[in-house]
Amino acid sequence: MSDTARLETFADGVFAIAITLLILEVKVPSVAGARLGAAVAHQWPSYAGYVVSFLTIGVMWVNHHHMFKLIERTSHGFLMTNVVFLMTIAFLPWPTALVAEYIRDPSGRTVATVVYGLTMTAIAIMFNVVWRYASGRGALLGQEVDPAAVARTRRSYLMGPIVYATATLVALANPFISLSIFAALAVYWLLPGTGPRGMTRPPEPA
Amino acid sequence: MSDTARLETFADGVFAIAITLLILEVKVPSVAGARLGAAVAHQWPSYAGYVVSFLTIGVMWVNHHHMFKLIERTSHGFLMTNVVFLMTIAFLPWPTALVAEYIRDPSGRTVATVVYGLTMTAIAIMFNVVWRYASGRGALLGQEVDPAAVARTRRSYLMGPIVYATATLVALANPFISLSIFAALAVYWLLPGTGPRGMTRPPEPA
Amino acid sequence: MSDTARLETFADGVFAIAITLLILEVKVPSVAGARLGAAVAHQWPSYAGYVVSFLTIGVMWVNHHHMFKLIERTSHGFLMTNVVFLMTIAFLPWPTALVAEYIRDPSGRTVATVVYGLTMTAIAIMFNVVWRYASGRGALLGQEVDPAAVARTRRSYLMGPIVYATATLVALANPFISLSIFAALAVYWLLPGTGPRGMTRPPEPA
Amino acid sequence: MSDTARLETFADGVFAIAITLLILEVKVPSVAGARLGAAVAHQWPSYAGYVVSFLTIGVMWVNHHHMFKLIERTSHGFLMTNVVFLMTIAFLPWPTALVAEYIRDPSGRTVATVVYGLTMTAIAIMFNVVWRYASGRGALLGQEVDPAAVARTRRSYLMGPIVYATATLVALANPFISLSIFAALAVYWLLPGTGPRGMTRPPEPA
Repeated sequence: MSDTARLETFADGVFAIAITLLILEVKVPSVAGARLGAAVAHQWPSYAGYVVSFLTIGVMWVNHHHMFKLIERTSHGFLMTNVVFLMTIAFLPWPTALVAEYIRDPSGRTVATVVYGLTMTAIAIMFNVVWRYASGRGALLGQEVDPAAVARTRRSYLMGPIVYATATLVALANPFISLSIFAALAVYWLLPGTGPRGMTRPPEPA
Repeated sequence: MSDTARLETFADGVFAIAITLLILEVKVPSVAGARLGAAVAHQWPSYAGYVVSFLTIGVMWVNHHHMFKLIERTSHGFLMTNVVFLMTIAFLPWPTALVAEYIRDPSGRTVATVVYGLTMTAIAIMFNVVWRYASGRGALLGQEVDPAAVARTRRSYLMGPIVYATATLVALANPFISLSIFAALAVYWLLPGTGPRGMTRPPEPA
Repeated sequence: MSDTARLETFADGVFAIAITLLILEVKVPSVAGARLGAAVAHQWPSYAGYVVSFLTIGVMWVNHHHMFKLIERTSHGFLMTNVVFLMTIAFLPWPTALVAEYIRDPSGRTVATVVYGLTMTAIAIMFNVVWRYASGRGALLGQEVDPAAVARTRRSYLMGPIVYATATLVALANPFISLSIFAALAVYWLLPGTGPRGMTRPPEPA
Repeated sequence: MSDTARLETFADGVFAIAITLLILEVKVPSVAGARLGAAVAHQWPSYAGYVVSFLTIGVMWVNHHHMFKLIERTSHGFLMTNVVFLMTIAFLPWPTALVAEYIRDPSGRTVATVVYGLTMTAIAIMFNVVWRYASGRGALLGQEVDPAAVARTRRSYLMGPIVYATATLVALANPFISLSIFAALAVYWLLPGTGPRGMTRPPEPA
């Protein structure tokens, strides 16, 4: 396999596993049968967390996919940079479970949401690091890629860490608003047409 | 890797992981050794759930595979549509465990079966959405695909949501009949020869 | 992707996940620190089960790999046959945990070992069904494959179910001897040189 | 798929799954909300273990990747050798959890660290066995590979088992120093530029 093919395969594996493991954090209630309906309804934060984190990882996968259309080579340092990026992605099931567990607890929900937000921010930062490594000193892009498009992409990707860090700070004031922002971002980037405009913009082919 | 190859790889990863995680919901009994035989036998709903959900995900994988023989391109929106489809597939281990846990409880089994049926219905609906996106406005099929075959396929795929939604409604009256329908469908579509006739029909190559 | 490439990717995914999930059945002891050494040693059946099941799935993967060198096409029925085969592979973590849990319990170890043996036997039977489907009415092999080699391979693959069923019967008399046979088979087929002679023989290229 | 492509796919699957399963060993604290911050902080060994083991598996994956650039063929014995290597990789989540659980317990941390170190040593030994098999009697390398580079690579790979075995012995005196060595090694090999010099050196293309 080519250099980038094997990296893409490995990254896709980690994306696919992290996204699928999210369901393990949704627990089967242990209640009397007559109360199962209420117990299932009561678990709504688990389903909401599943959906938001699933969509977020999915959006990240789509963007990683866009990015690799422009990358032609790898290097030792670039493989390692991707490993660190994937370490933040694979971490997400844990803060997702943390938020689902403590969202109804007024004294615990701030901490849980901040941990969740820090993880999202770390993912977005590492996504930028991967792209900057490839497009900068790594010099891993194809010859035909337009430098102006690369510069525009770099700027648009910067929105990710800024937006996620802001939403994390909001959690200190109100965790629900913070989580609503994370949910809204996941749904927004999911919409057809947002690909080329938001942080998730695939670099235009030159 | 080509656009569709990376999407297929990612989708296959999620299918493979969701199908394999099903075994984690089958628990090791914690009983005195002399009662192990009875305890293992008592767990039959777990094995039945494992088999039905495994075959259902397997059938969905086979059909996704058939569909992608006709798809030549992807787009941002199509990748996202597939992410949402995979979100319903990856959710299945949880309702499977729910049914296995509550099937013997007369006051809990209706809720559990309805949740299972709603998940199956959501999977079937999203399968249709994926195909309609690709074959409709997405315009992602190869040039040589016969429009009449596409129209026939669209109609035959519609059977899925109808059948699953009906089986879900049946659960309100009798969960066992409902689950028997899900089991029968999984086994039926497994049979050689059903591929071209049922919901799982691969579109005839034009 | 080609027909067989996508089937191989999916099958490899299930093999890789089932084999890696085995570690989840090895538990972290919950004891006072001073007794950790003894507790870790006491868990030897878990490590032994991990090794034997890991090697068994590994051997199955290698043989599936050999088989697919000769298979050129797939069909709806063949994909479904592989799904059922993979269902037996993905089931193995559960009986592995069952044996590890009950091997020290004189009144439970027979049942656990029989369940393990039945799973191994089912795997070996389905392996034969897959090969017979491909080489028989499925007619999925390449033109250049020698019919005499196919016939020899069919006969040699039959050893698998016979040996595993026999070892399962032995468990009724003595579970330890039975498990030793499973372990010995896994190690034996691991050895270089056994590939071409045992059940795991790759069909000679014609 | 080619021989080596299918082996790489399978190996990448096991690497990706083992690395992603590490997060399952990080538990959600079960405390009153007001104490969640302290409980999350108290779990630092789990995060540290996640990072060190993630980076270690990542480094192993990168090196496996480098190695396979030079390997052109496989054999029954080589596939099996890789299965045994992957068995040591897939085992790592368990000693990682063991260390995280017992690192704060003065009477348990030595045993836990030794088990962790033995696993790391076994991984490094098997990595050498795989390379020696391929480059030695297995004769699986491409014709154009320079024998002098192979010999240099063999020698440099030997550093792995030696360093890990030494760090394991150090655990008998002081588990914290031992774990610091494992952490330092993971971070060191992560740095750009260490690829060609450390144990992780990719063999120079001849």
